Amino acid sequence: MKNLAADVRTAGRELAAADGEARSAALERMADALVARSAELLAANALDVAAAGEAVREGRMTEALAARLPLSEGKLRDLSDGLRALAAMGDPLHRLLRRTQLGDGLVLEQRTVPMGTLLVIFESRPDALVQVAALAVRSGNGLLLKGGKEAAYSNRALHAVLAGALAPLPSAALGLVEGRADVDALLKLDGLVDLVIPRGSNALVRHVQENTRIPVLGHADGVCHVFVDADADPERALAVVLDSKLDYPAACNAMETLLVHEGYPHADALIAGLRDAGVRLRGGPSAAARWGLPPVEDFHTEYSDTEASVALVPDVDAAIAHIHRFGSGHTEAIVTRDTSVAERFLARVDSASVFHDCSTRFADGFRYGLGAEVGISTSRIHARGPVGVEGLLTTRWTLRGGGHTVGAVKRGEWSFDHSDLL
Amino acid sequence: MKNLAADVRTAGRELAAADGEARSAALERMADALVARSAELLAANALDVAAAGEAVREGRMTEALAARLPLSEGKLRDLSDGLRALAAMGDPLHRLLRRTQLGDGLVLEQRTVPMGTLLVIFESRPDALVQVAALAVRSGNGLLLKGGKEAAYSNRALHAVLAGALAPLPSAALGLVEGRADVDALLKLDGLVDLVIPRGSNALVRHVQENTRIPVLGHADGVCHVFVDADADPERALAVVLDSKLDYPAACNAMETLLVHEGYPHADALIAGLRDAGVRLRGGPSAAARWGLPPVEDFHTEYSDTEASVALVPDVDAAIAHIHRFGSGHTEAIVTRDTSVAERFLARVDSASVFHDCSTRFADGFRYGLGAEVGISTSRIHARGPVGVEGLLTTRWTLRGGGHTVGAVKRGEWSFDHSDLL
Repeated sequence: MKNLAADVRTAGRELAAADGEARSAALERMADALVARSAELLAANALDVAAAGEAVREGRMTEALAARLPLSEGKLRDLSDGLRALAAMGDPLHRLLRRTQLGDGLVLEQRTVPMGTLLVIFESRPDALVQVAALAVRSGNGLLLKGGKEAAYSNRALHAVLAGALAPLPSAALGLVEGRADVDALLKLDGLVDLVIPRGSNALVRHVQENTRIPVLGHADGVCHVFVDADADPERALAVVLDSKLDYPAACNAMETLLVHEGYPHADALIAGLRDAGVRLRGGPSAAARWGLPPVEDFHTEYSDTEASVALVPDVDAAIAHIHRFGSGHTEAIVTRDTSVAERFLARVDSASVFHDCSTRFADGFRYGLGAEVGISTSRIHARGPVGVEGLLTTRWTLRGGGHTVGAVKRGEWSFDHSDLL
Repeated sequence: MKNLAADVRTAGRELAAADGEARSAALERMADALVARSAELLAANALDVAAAGEAVREGRMTEALAARLPLSEGKLRDLSDGLRALAAMGDPLHRLLRRTQLGDGLVLEQRTVPMGTLLVIFESRPDALVQVAALAVRSGNGLLLKGGKEAAYSNRALHAVLAGALAPLPSAALGLVEGRADVDALLKLDGLVDLVIPRGSNALVRHVQENTRIPVLGHADGVCHVFVDADADPERALAVVLDSKLDYPAACNAMETLLVHEGYPHADALIAGLRDAGVRLRGGPSAAARWGLPPVEDFHTEYSDTEASVALVPDVDAAIAHIHRFGSGHTEAIVTRDTSVAERFLARVDSASVFHDCSTRFADGFRYGLGAEVGISTSRIHARGPVGVEGLLTTRWTLRGGGHTVGAVKRGEWSFDHSDLL
């Protein structure tokens, strides 16, 4: 596995050294191959789907997991379109971030470069392999792919098709970890892997976070809050709360806890609206008493379902304190007509995304206009919130001189200039 | 210790919520206090210096460590000037990085915000406490300070003076970890600390890196290379190599390994120049044979002294391969008149800083014009190379709407616009 990782790093360096057009052309070839070789891909996928069906019948696999396995002509076409969109996107590499003249004939530049080697660990969905491989090629990173054994045939076929289409760029830049190599062994490859991206259940993400010293991009929890202030517009409040909870209840950016200002005059209607829409509510002490709700067991809970916690709070600062105590730093929203209260909330809530008068469901790379989404990060390091291709990049400094030495500065022969040339 | 960390986080949030001018004024008060209370600070420092003297005599402390302890009126004045320079610097917080219209009346912004809570672990030099506290205030971060016991009196006195001068900003934002609380317990505070910055020996940095899941800013090794190409200007080559090795041999950006092209016609003069300057050389097999050098034991060695490894290489690609195999990704330089060779080296060497025709010693935050240096990072995550105040920041997204929901987009009532408003 160390050899595979070393090969991926070497090949990744070649990918990074290739120009943006060569990487765009490779993405086009990958897009073509997905469609041209769809029969072969679907045949491999059918083997996984059949095995999963048996596993579900025998109680060895959940239906939810099995439901994520199937590919189809339509899905492959969508994936192919996604690859073409990335091919058409401007090259994110070698972007000039800073150019400073340090002295006469001594010019410093800082430019974007790939991170190096990514390790992506994903469960079930074989389409994740395609998306991640495409992002790696666009960003010039080497990639180690580790999929679940439930999708082994699909992953092997997709990998063969995509890596083959990379040529003349080095196909070794996309490495598939096969067989029984377990995740924990991969997580020990610090020094050979620069970033791990777990794509799957909260349990997987948490396991990765707790068992590696490689930086992890992602989030385990999405305990998102909506705070309805005393001065909220009742129609907006109901619309934002319903959308935040119900647009896709299992999403990480769905509302889990509704905070209601004690003085909000339309609180009863809001609760009734949620109940009418089929949301099962649990209350903190005063909310439970007021609306006859079962008690909240733990305000940290991510229901990922048509269920939510409700708490009454005396003011915006109490709402912020609740969020800081129980939230996961993902996405929170306030609904209010009072702009000073809204701005206090926006300024003080310490989460990756903080919204006013709109649904938490907007926290998403595509909706933010990032072009592609690598994941959503609740860490404060490197990238925070929805992460696009730039989350797979780092920077590098170059300095071009004419025999310049620090000794000459110390001897007073010249002094630093630091004029900005950008 | 968890309580202290929680208090630092809460107070740090107040610091972040204060405006830039309030944090500048606090830095001015801290600068004043260092000078006004110098007698008290020097008296405390004298206790540490006396104890260190005894420890050196008894062989319990190295002279190098003891030499880093003393403060003086002059040093305090310099530190005070540094604080005033940071006070005068523009506020790095709330800088607008992106403003996108997602739809009519729905505007996304991305701005810089503080990381949260920093943990700085430092050895000996009490002046590090002042520099780090100043950077924390400038960047609006809470700070947990953990100094060595050899500087306990100095650290306590400096901390009291600086935290006191913070008021009316919350002095709890600067927390000093005292007593026997050991470093390993601090390193387990993930969730309460967002970034660890070890400031001290390679052994300290490596220990921190290997014993925490909190992100670490820093580098353990600085195995920097200079490659003298066949077409190097001999005068420049000698000047760059001598400066890279001798300007400050113990620095992390000093040259440890000299790579010489086999066809470089002035190689003998270069080696003679290094010997004349007092550099002890060790050679790889062919260099050792050619110049009668003792063998290199390990090309990973960071001598941190007037000593260096030398290897002969057949071409620039072999030089790059050597660097990737043995380097630490810190700083490498090439000397050559051939710009295509230089550009190949600059494009392909995968280190934080890569130079042409200038000394590796330029890899430094002040020399790069970053205003202040938090450290030099050889990690690829978050910040790479010399890191200024911006290395202590992350970003946050805000979205201001008018009752917008994702459901409305799905129903076709409006569609994403994504026009750039910056």
